[in-house]
Amino acid sequence: MSPAHTEVGTAGYTTLQTSRTGAILTVTINNKASNVNLLSKRVFFELDQLVTYLPNDTSTKVVLFESKNPTFFAAHVDLIQRPEDDNLNVDAHFATNVLFNITGLPQATIAVIDGPARGIGSEFVFACDMRFASKNAIFGNFEVALGNIPGAGGASYMPQLIGRGRAFEYLLSGKDIDAFTAETYGWVNKAFSSSSDLYKYANELAARIALFPAAALVSIKASVNSITRPTRDQVESDAREYVRLSQTPERHQFLKKFLALTNNGTDVAVELDLGEEVVKLYH
Amino acid sequence: MSPAHTEVGTAGYTTLQTSRTGAILTVTINNKASNVNLLSKRVFFELDQLVTYLPNDTSTKVVLFESKNPTFFAAHVDLIQRPEDDNLNVDAHFATNVLFNITGLPQATIAVIDGPARGIGSEFVFACDMRFASKNAIFGNFEVALGNIPGAGGASYMPQLIGRGRAFEYLLSGKDIDAFTAETYGWVNKAFSSSSDLYKYANELAARIALFPAAALVSIKASVNSITRPTRDQVESDAREYVRLSQTPERHQFLKKFLALTNNGTDVAVELDLGEEVVKLYH
Amino acid sequence: MSPAHTEVGTAGYTTLQTSRTGAILTVTINNKASNVNLLSKRVFFELDQLVTYLPNDTSTKVVLFESKNPTFFAAHVDLIQRPEDDNLNVDAHFATNVLFNITGLPQATIAVIDGPARGIGSEFVFACDMRFASKNAIFGNFEVALGNIPGAGGASYMPQLIGRGRAFEYLLSGKDIDAFTAETYGWVNKAFSSSSDLYKYANELAARIALFPAAALVSIKASVNSITRPTRDQVESDAREYVRLSQTPERHQFLKKFLALTNNGTDVAVELDLGEEVVKLYH
Repeated sequence: MSPAHTEVGTAGYTTLQTSRTGAILTVTINNKASNVNLLSKRVFFELDQLVTYLPNDTSTKVVLFESKNPTFFAAHVDLIQRPEDDNLNVDAHFATNVLFNITGLPQATIAVIDGPARGIGSEFVFACDMRFASKNAIFGNFEVALGNIPGAGGASYMPQLIGRGRAFEYLLSGKDIDAFTAETYGWVNKAFSSSSDLYKYANELAARIALFPAAALVSIKASVNSITRPTRDQVESDAREYVRLSQTPERHQFLKKFLALTNNGTDVAVELDLGEEVVKLYH
Repeated sequence: MSPAHTEVGTAGYTTLQTSRTGAILTVTINNKASNVNLLSKRVFFELDQLVTYLPNDTSTKVVLFESKNPTFFAAHVDLIQRPEDDNLNVDAHFATNVLFNITGLPQATIAVIDGPARGIGSEFVFACDMRFASKNAIFGNFEVALGNIPGAGGASYMPQLIGRGRAFEYLLSGKDIDAFTAETYGWVNKAFSSSSDLYKYANELAARIALFPAAALVSIKASVNSITRPTRDQVESDAREYVRLSQTPERHQFLKKFLALTNNGTDVAVELDLGEEVVKLYH
Repeated sequence: MSPAHTEVGTAGYTTLQTSRTGAILTVTINNKASNVNLLSKRVFFELDQLVTYLPNDTSTKVVLFESKNPTFFAAHVDLIQRPEDDNLNVDAHFATNVLFNITGLPQATIAVIDGPARGIGSEFVFACDMRFASKNAIFGNFEVALGNIPGAGGASYMPQLIGRGRAFEYLLSGKDIDAFTAETYGWVNKAFSSSSDLYKYANELAARIALFPAAALVSIKASVNSITRPTRDQVESDAREYVRLSQTPERHQFLKKFLALTNNGTDVAVELDLGEEVVKLYH
C-alpha cells in the first residue's frame, strides 16, 4: 500500500485515520486519549459519520478496519464520563445502530485484528463482514461479569458464526478466546502466526475484492445479509437490555470496581489479561 | 465441590439426584431400573418437575447434568412398557416439551457427557445450552433405523450446531459420532482425553458462570435463544411425526427386533456399539 | 455396486447417465460436448426431468451425484450459445428452481466430488443434502469476477454451512477453496486423500441410508429443511439479481474476455486453476 491521503469525507476526525489505495479505504482506529484504544463516544460519533458517508462513496469497494495502538485492537468501551464528549449524543442504541449499519454497507468490510478486541471491540469486529487475526489477538465479551449483556448486538452476531453451544459458553462465562481457537470455531475467518502474515493476507484479499464491480459486491452482500443478519429489532433489543441492566444499583457497584481494577481503563497489564482479571470483581 | 445436600424442590425423585454447591445445582441422572441409564417415563416425569421448579429457583444460576451410570450417559429412551409407570402421562409430546423447556430455563445448563448418549439421550444434550464430552462419549440419533425421526426435537436442534450437510449425514444414516469428531463439527463445545479433565473443565466453567448476576445470564440467554432456538411449533412437529411413524406396522416389527437385539435395552455390549449393531435389524 | 441398468424414467438422457443398485440411484453427469463437464442448458433440462421424476420414484431412497469427466466434477455453467439447445427454455430462474427442487427431494442426495466444482457446479453441490470430496476437488464461486452474483442460490446456501464471515470471504473474492479447507469450514462433510477412499465412503454411507424406511428419510429431511433451507423467494431473488447484472454492458465485456481466457470453456489448464486465472480479466 503506497501513496495514502486523507479522505475528504472523513476530514476532521480525531480518533479515526483514513487512507486510500485505489478502491480500498483503510480506517485506523486511534483513540489517542487512551493507551488501550478504548472505544469512546468520540470514536462512535466518528464511526457514525464514516458509516453515513460510505454508502455514497462510490470510489470505495473495500474497507479495512485496523488499529493504530501498538498492543490493542480495542480494549472495550470507554466507561469514563468525559466532559469533552458531553455534547455527543452517543449511547448504547447509537453504538448498536452504528454497528448494524456497518453490516449493511455496500462495501466489503474487513477487520484486521492484531491485538485484544473485547467488549464493544469484539462486537465491532462481529459487525464487519470478515475478521482476520494474528496470534496477538484475544477476543472476549466479558459484559456478563459487570452484570450485563453485550450492548451493541454481540449476543446476536456471535451465534451465527460459532453456533449456539459455543456462543452460550463465551457469552455466559465472559472468558477470553485466543486467535487460533477463534479460527477453529469460525469466530474469525483465519488466524496467523505473525502480524506481517495477517496484514499481507488481509491486504491481498482486499486488493482482490477491490478489482471486482461494486454492483456485484452489493448484490452478494444483500443476499448473504438476508440469510444471516439479525434484524435491527433483534440488536436493538440487546441495546435495551443493556440500558435496563446498566441502571441497577448492582451494576453501579461493578462499574466502580471495574474502574478501580483497570485504573480507569489504563492498566495495560490488567487489560491484556482482562478475561481473567475481571473475575477479581468477585473476590 | 463440597457439602452437597438434597434440594427441597426435588425431594422424592427416584431417577434424578441433585446436589448443590452455592449457585450450582448438579443433577445426576440415575435410572436404577436400567443398567444403561435408559431415559424412562419416570425420568422425563421427574425432569418435568425439575424444569417446572427451576424458573422459580432464584438460588440456582447453573445446572450441571451428569450421569451416575459408570458407562452410559443415557443409552436411549426406555422402549419397554413398565406397569409401574402406567400412571405417568408421558409421551413424545411431553418429552419434547420438557426438552424445549430446558432450552428456555433462566439458568445456564451444561451437559457433562462421560459415556454414550444416543437417541433421546442425544436430544437431551442438544437441549442443554452447552455440551462437554470425554473420550468415552459417543453420540448418535439412530431413530431412522427404527423407521422414525428423533421424536423430541433432535432434528431441529442439530443443524444449528453442525450445519445442514452434517446434520443430514448423521440423521439420515443414524450412525455414531465420537467425541473428538463431535468437537470438530461443533456438536459438542469441547472434548477431553479423560473423564477427570472433563469434570474439571465443566466444574470450573460452572463456577465462573455462577459468579455472575442472574439477571445478566437471563438476558444473554434470551438474546441467543431468539436467534438460535427452533420454535416450539417446529419441535412439536417433530414429535407429531414421531408419533405418526410409531403407529405403522413396519415400526412395530422394528421395535420387536430392536428389543430382541438389545435384550430389552440391557445388553451393555450391544448398547455400547449401538450405531453399528442397529444395522443388524436389516440382516 | 454391481448390476447397473438404465432407469426407465431417465431414458433418452444424453448428459446424465443413471444406474441403480437396489434403492441407490447413481446419476453421473457427463456432458460429452465439453471436456471440462460444463453444465449446459441440456444438463439442466435433463436434471429438471430427473427432479420431476424422483418424487414419484418410490424405489429410490438415495441419489449419488457423480461426474464421468476424468478431471472435473463440473467446471461451471456453459456460457456459449449452442444452436442445438435453442429450443430448451433454460435460464437462471430455471436452473435455480431445479437446484431448489433437489433440496426438497424425498431421497437423500449425496454429491461425490472428485474434481473441481465451480460456479453453478458449486451451487449444484450446495443443493445436495451432503457433499464429500477427494483431494482433487476444488470449489469456487467466481461469479463476482464476472461482475455477478451466483445465479442459482449459491449465496443463499453457502452461509448455513460455513457461516457469515467465511461466506463473505469466498463470495466477495471469488477465490478457490481446496477440499481439506472446505472440510474444516463445513463446506463439505468430509475430505479424502484419494478418489478410492471418497467413493468407498460415499457408497457405504449410501448403502446404509438405503436400508432405512423411506418414510423416515422423508420426515427427517422435512424437519431439517424447515430449519435450514432458504425460501424459494430467497433463491429466486438471487436469480433475479443474476439476470439483472447479466444485462449490463460491463458484464458483456467480462463474458467476452472470459470466453477468450478459457478458450470458450475448453482450456483445461486455465479451468483447473480458474480461481487464480479469472483475475487476469482485470489485467
